[in-house]
Amino acid sequence: MKRRLLLVSNSTLYGGGYLDHCQQEIKQFFGDHVKKILFVPYALKDRDTYASTARKKFTSLGYELDSVHEAADPVEAVKRAEGIFIGGGNTFRLLKTLYDHKLVSEIQRRVLVDGVPYMGSSAGTNVSTISIHTTNDMPIVYPPSLDAIGLVPFNINPHYVDPDPNSRHMGETREQRILQFHEEPDTPHVLGLREGSMLLVEGHKATLLGSTNARLFPRGEAATEFTPGSDLSFLLTD
Amino acid sequence: MKRRLLLVSNSTLYGGGYLDHCQQEIKQFFGDHVKKILFVPYALKDRDTYASTARKKFTSLGYELDSVHEAADPVEAVKRAEGIFIGGGNTFRLLKTLYDHKLVSEIQRRVLVDGVPYMGSSAGTNVSTISIHTTNDMPIVYPPSLDAIGLVPFNINPHYVDPDPNSRHMGETREQRILQFHEEPDTPHVLGLREGSMLLVEGHKATLLGSTNARLFPRGEAATEFTPGSDLSFLLTD
Ligand SMILES: [Ca+2]
Ligand SMILES: [Ca+2]
Repeated sequence: MKRRLLLVSNSTLYGGGYLDHCQQEIKQFFGDHVKKILFVPYALKDRDTYASTARKKFTSLGYELDSVHEAADPVEAVKRAEGIFIGGGNTFRLLKTLYDHKLVSEIQRRVLVDGVPYMGSSAGTNVSTISIHTTNDMPIVYPPSLDAIGLVPFNINPHYVDPDPNSRHMGETREQRILQFHEEPDTPHVLGLREGSMLLVEGHKATLLGSTNARLFPRGEAATEFTPGSDLSFLLTD
Repeated sequence: MKRRLLLVSNSTLYGGGYLDHCQQEIKQFFGDHVKKILFVPYALKDRDTYASTARKKFTSLGYELDSVHEAADPVEAVKRAEGIFIGGGNTFRLLKTLYDHKLVSEIQRRVLVDGVPYMGSSAGTNVSTISIHTTNDMPIVYPPSLDAIGLVPFNINPHYVDPDPNSRHMGETREQRILQFHEEPDTPHVLGLREGSMLLVEGHKATLLGSTNARLFPRGEAATEFTPGSDLSFLLTD
């Protein structure tokens, strides 16, 4: 399997600029071979501004960037893409728009069959997994399904946060929400990627990268912590 | 219109017990006329434990309580209910189960046509409104629609929280999430009910109750704050 994925928890880390905290990983991931990235801005309303932010960053890293929302035929744009980057925003809006433009299966084919490298950040990481059942976002629109592109057979929770021991807020903690997900039948493992964390997938190998630990919620077992550099390839065998 | 609703932000307020912070309002709302409440525990997995918690509290307030999950025919139980209380938990699971049991339209009819008093808390407040598009919960299951019981023509965001100025977390604030909802076409006003807050609806009159201000996000206008006691009846005219 040719699959190559860089799945980033968050686009901006506290105190830094857009994608600053993962720029070395981005350059290593797309390498010298890819010249132009196809950007998917559907998670935010203002696609022009979003594409210009992404273009500025990728240009500074030595890549050209086309935004799929400027393409006359989005499916055709995906068919020709050398590399794909789906940015963050609202996960429901993003997935619905991917379905509206018939891009879900086409992106899956390009990445899993043709080996086109796929980078996702935040909502773009959610949609790369088996489903968006573990997004943090508000369901502002209703997608035709919560099944997503399915590039990996498990779920990710981006922006994972630990409970705040000083909080007086009584809404569910993130961990409680994920445990509620696992109360439902046949739900897969959930990898909680804290801000600063990312997962690199190359074929059947998965490696945790970044500056923070990740918290894995295996279905029906206690959660465990993994340090950067950990081999998480076992998540890829469903 | 006979409609009578008590829509509570949260079931438990920091430092208190289950429904303690709104027990006076509950007694005033159901009054002496209602003897038995029909409880809907679908938002949590363990319905028996949930019903027993609710029964204990309502018994202490002088009401009997039946749980709909113990009824042979849930629709029949709603048809006979003197008063309805839907508790909190996961909003997606709650709404899906209401649809699975064909209770959405039956509860709507009992409340709007027959004048059966309806109390909701947290997820039970979300499902009472026009839709669950402004829930905070994780989409752990996929309901057939996000349209809800529609007892009021606007949206509520329960457990509303203000941004934490000391936070280094880069996920969207609650306000940003609600503003993203309003970027979508034809979205209604959103009432952010902070923990401790509740809305009393009697016919065409709506009054804010509780111990905290509420924050209203009118579509396309700046957010405004309302103090307890405020008349919010204008929200009922869509
Ligand atoms: Ca988001
Ligand atoms: Ca909840």
